[in-house]
Amino acid sequence: MDLGMIFVSEVLGTGMLILLGAGVVANVLLTKSKGFNGGWLLINFGWGFAVMAGVFVAYKSGGHINPAVTLGIWASGADEYAPEVAITVGSTLVYLAGQLLGAFLGACVAFLAYRKHFEAEPDEAKKLAVFATGPEIRSYGWNVVTEVIGTFVLVLVVLSFANTPHELGPLAVALLVVGIGASLGGPTGYAINPARDLGPRIAHALLPMSHKAPARTPDLVGAGASGEGAGPGAGGDAEPPLPASRKNSDWRYAWVPVVGPFIGGILAGVASRFLF
Amino acid sequence: MDLGMIFVSEVLGTGMLILLGAGVVANVLLTKSKGFNGGWLLINFGWGFAVMAGVFVAYKSGGHINPAVTLGIWASGADEYAPEVAITVGSTLVYLAGQLLGAFLGACVAFLAYRKHFEAEPDEAKKLAVFATGPEIRSYGWNVVTEVIGTFVLVLVVLSFANTPHELGPLAVALLVVGIGASLGGPTGYAINPARDLGPRIAHALLPMSHKAPARTPDLVGAGASGEGAGPGAGGDAEPPLPASRKNSDWRYAWVPVVGPFIGGILAGVASRFLF
Amino acid sequence: MDLGMIFVSEVLGTGMLILLGAGVVANVLLTKSKGFNGGWLLINFGWGFAVMAGVFVAYKSGGHINPAVTLGIWASGADEYAPEVAITVGSTLVYLAGQLLGAFLGACVAFLAYRKHFEAEPDEAKKLAVFATGPEIRSYGWNVVTEVIGTFVLVLVVLSFANTPHELGPLAVALLVVGIGASLGGPTGYAINPARDLGPRIAHALLPMSHKAPARTPDLVGAGASGEGAGPGAGGDAEPPLPASRKNSDWRYAWVPVVGPFIGGILAGVASRFLF
Amino acid sequence: MDLGMIFVSEVLGTGMLILLGAGVVANVLLTKSKGFNGGWLLINFGWGFAVMAGVFVAYKSGGHINPAVTLGIWASGADEYAPEVAITVGSTLVYLAGQLLGAFLGACVAFLAYRKHFEAEPDEAKKLAVFATGPEIRSYGWNVVTEVIGTFVLVLVVLSFANTPHELGPLAVALLVVGIGASLGGPTGYAINPARDLGPRIAHALLPMSHKAPARTPDLVGAGASGEGAGPGAGGDAEPPLPASRKNSDWRYAWVPVVGPFIGGILAGVASRFLF
Repeated sequence: MDLGMIFVSEVLGTGMLILLGAGVVANVLLTKSKGFNGGWLLINFGWGFAVMAGVFVAYKSGGHINPAVTLGIWASGADEYAPEVAITVGSTLVYLAGQLLGAFLGACVAFLAYRKHFEAEPDEAKKLAVFATGPEIRSYGWNVVTEVIGTFVLVLVVLSFANTPHELGPLAVALLVVGIGASLGGPTGYAINPARDLGPRIAHALLPMSHKAPARTPDLVGAGASGEGAGPGAGGDAEPPLPASRKNSDWRYAWVPVVGPFIGGILAGVASRFLF
Repeated sequence: MDLGMIFVSEVLGTGMLILLGAGVVANVLLTKSKGFNGGWLLINFGWGFAVMAGVFVAYKSGGHINPAVTLGIWASGADEYAPEVAITVGSTLVYLAGQLLGAFLGACVAFLAYRKHFEAEPDEAKKLAVFATGPEIRSYGWNVVTEVIGTFVLVLVVLSFANTPHELGPLAVALLVVGIGASLGGPTGYAINPARDLGPRIAHALLPMSHKAPARTPDLVGAGASGEGAGPGAGGDAEPPLPASRKNSDWRYAWVPVVGPFIGGILAGVASRFLF
Repeated sequence: MDLGMIFVSEVLGTGMLILLGAGVVANVLLTKSKGFNGGWLLINFGWGFAVMAGVFVAYKSGGHINPAVTLGIWASGADEYAPEVAITVGSTLVYLAGQLLGAFLGACVAFLAYRKHFEAEPDEAKKLAVFATGPEIRSYGWNVVTEVIGTFVLVLVVLSFANTPHELGPLAVALLVVGIGASLGGPTGYAINPARDLGPRIAHALLPMSHKAPARTPDLVGAGASGEGAGPGAGGDAEPPLPASRKNSDWRYAWVPVVGPFIGGILAGVASRFLF
Repeated sequence: MDLGMIFVSEVLGTGMLILLGAGVVANVLLTKSKGFNGGWLLINFGWGFAVMAGVFVAYKSGGHINPAVTLGIWASGADEYAPEVAITVGSTLVYLAGQLLGAFLGACVAFLAYRKHFEAEPDEAKKLAVFATGPEIRSYGWNVVTEVIGTFVLVLVVLSFANTPHELGPLAVALLVVGIGASLGGPTGYAINPARDLGPRIAHALLPMSHKAPARTPDLVGAGASGEGAGPGAGGDAEPPLPASRKNSDWRYAWVPVVGPFIGGILAGVASRFLF
């Protein structure tokens, strides 16, 4: 299949995923929204049905919409990424590039949908939390562990779908993501998808925000949606949280939801060779 | 197929949609109801399964139950609206008329189901919110943008359903609507359907309400279900909210949930020509 | 098919329905339960999946588990109640008897599952609410209207299921019941099933409760799960609520959730002749 | 089929079940988690989709992931545990051993995912509740009754799945478990699976916890997730709760969620011989 078509398909699907995923976080966090304080289950279902929508529209490319899934399929020894889409370095890069661009664009559209609510929101940490994940207890090593485990579950179960008869289509992965969010999202906010975090974080850095900090005050603010603090047992890599008064895309943390999901996805692909 | 049958089918389906949709809002907003303060996710699932019920009963006409879907299918270049229902100006008007009438009638039946609760409710803004949508931050331009985005998602994903194998039937669009409500419903209450808003708004204007305002005091009240205010960054088209003490169907806003969904649906139909 | 088998099947299915349905209400209402104050959506999903379980185990009789469904199928002019089960006065009575007995037995088992929680609960109104429905605003006429509407929706949509391709099995009716509860359950607690209310109400009257009232103090207590009061506009048939201090099965209200659902189900069956 | 493969499959599936199941409890109970206080429905859906994930990955062994299901199938008189897996004492023991080991390992991985949150949590009773179930009103006899009823429902409905056409695959049992939790989980926390409780309880006893009690202070603490007390009507087997200040795996209660589910599962298997 045409790699351009693959690229467009993954842009579309990942864009849909992030539009709806960032949207539900905005709905729950931004003060003047109708879903304000709607609870964790609302966020979980929002992200789950975001996955469903994204997989439906990205049917031409098999609906990966997640670099960890793409690399997991690669690591599983599968023959192709989707019907008539061979696994090559080139096609892999096309998937990843489409996913990252789609995630960026989806975040921008979510920003438009909640434009006035971003303007009305005084809390910079909440604005960032709409776009990017952040840990409740900052501990890079353990945060990576949590993301590895969550993504391992995602990719391993996805790779098992074809072995049990069902006609759920994209609903199966949607509800799986609801479950992962409910169960493993507590510590880090379940990126479980490198593009899901990095694309919107770039969007957050570039998009105009009303309380944007001056350029000379970089890198000061924690990212936790509901506050973040170093727990009593946090290790030496923990840093004290700062008051959330300035726009900051928390780039110090940005590698965690990229590296963790890549490791988890690849591990799941390798494990599937022995388990399935 | 007989256009009269199409008309009846869309009246039935859209009536079912609005009966259940307005019902869940009544349940959550009206003070003496068992679902009072039940939360945004309850509203989302209520509307989602309302869509499911409406699509099931409107099977003869393909279960559009939404003018934006009808026009989206038209714009997509499809061959027919449903098996053996050709796309013509006449059939399009039959769909739209049926949807509007059904939405009006469904709202009237919902009013009957909650008759005593409307009588017992002192807050006029809540009564209107059962019938019609309203923005949390009034800004007509951005409110249109939000409705365009939500409806674009709805129609584009619906147009993609047939391309992925699944046997979810009407559950697919039901859960999609749950997701759109969770993710994009925060600013405007997700009409994403011109008939869903206009039909019940007409019903609100005509139905007897116990605290009905005198006819010479028109057009004073904001519509937000949970309060509405012009945010600090609201543009020049924002108007200050007024105390919710008089019946008012907020006709100033009524064009937004009609125009926005029409634009979003048509854009999705056009986009589908290139994407799918 | 053997009518004895039909009877057993409906006893089993309706028993499962009420065991799980009464169970979720007990979980949310009884003070010491883990699901205490779990919210309306929890109750809705609990009843919905109760329907799913009941329909699955009652497959031999077509999983009616609701006299309103049985009479609705009869009124629809269908050929049979289930494969090889003819529609006769005799088979109809077997269905209804099985449903009533099953509902009674299911309520007894739910009582056993929450035995210690009933003992620990001081509020008699909550105990009754586990078994039987009650209106938030007592107004027999309008309460009947609400039950008619809810049951009409249930039976009409169920009768439409076969016309749209899907492989949801009993999940379709389960989610429909979630939706009816979310949308139309606010005023009366959605019996939408004569057996669902009458069987457990009989069980409530017969089962030992720790704070049982002396036999000479009948018929004094309101039934609302969250309080019940005659609204300001309540008509002449409203009665003032009494303090919930004595066991009382609220027999004055018991005809409403029997008559309303029968009317709604039969109307839906008749309507389906013209609509489908 | 190779019994080693069965063993690995059940380890994997039960491990997935407990990883996600213990995870959602950790998310809701541990103070610094994003899902803190997320409510009972969140826990129900978390466990439900945990079952879905576990059944998908354990497809080679039929996805029992629960000794009560295995013994229920045995008691039902079925021909085999899964395609080409004969029912023998040996294969039964392989299933049970795999389930117990998987539950233990899944709990260990959940501990890793929430490592820092366990360190930050001062309440020992909450930590135990992540791993093992505990009653709200301690009354061993009635607690067993509740577990028998819940597991009977689970296994009986599972044994009926094949008799109704649907294509829900593992979603059917997932939503059934959501329903059982919503409806029957209130008194004891619905183990309904001996391995689900025993395996994680062993893990709790062995894993390092920051506030671990000295070895000479055994067996002092109640297990209730939200507090546990002997109700006013609790029988003679009730014991007063103690302040939750020391690590304790509540071994006095451990037999209840093993014996109850075994009885319920076997009863359901026997009942299915007569009912289905």
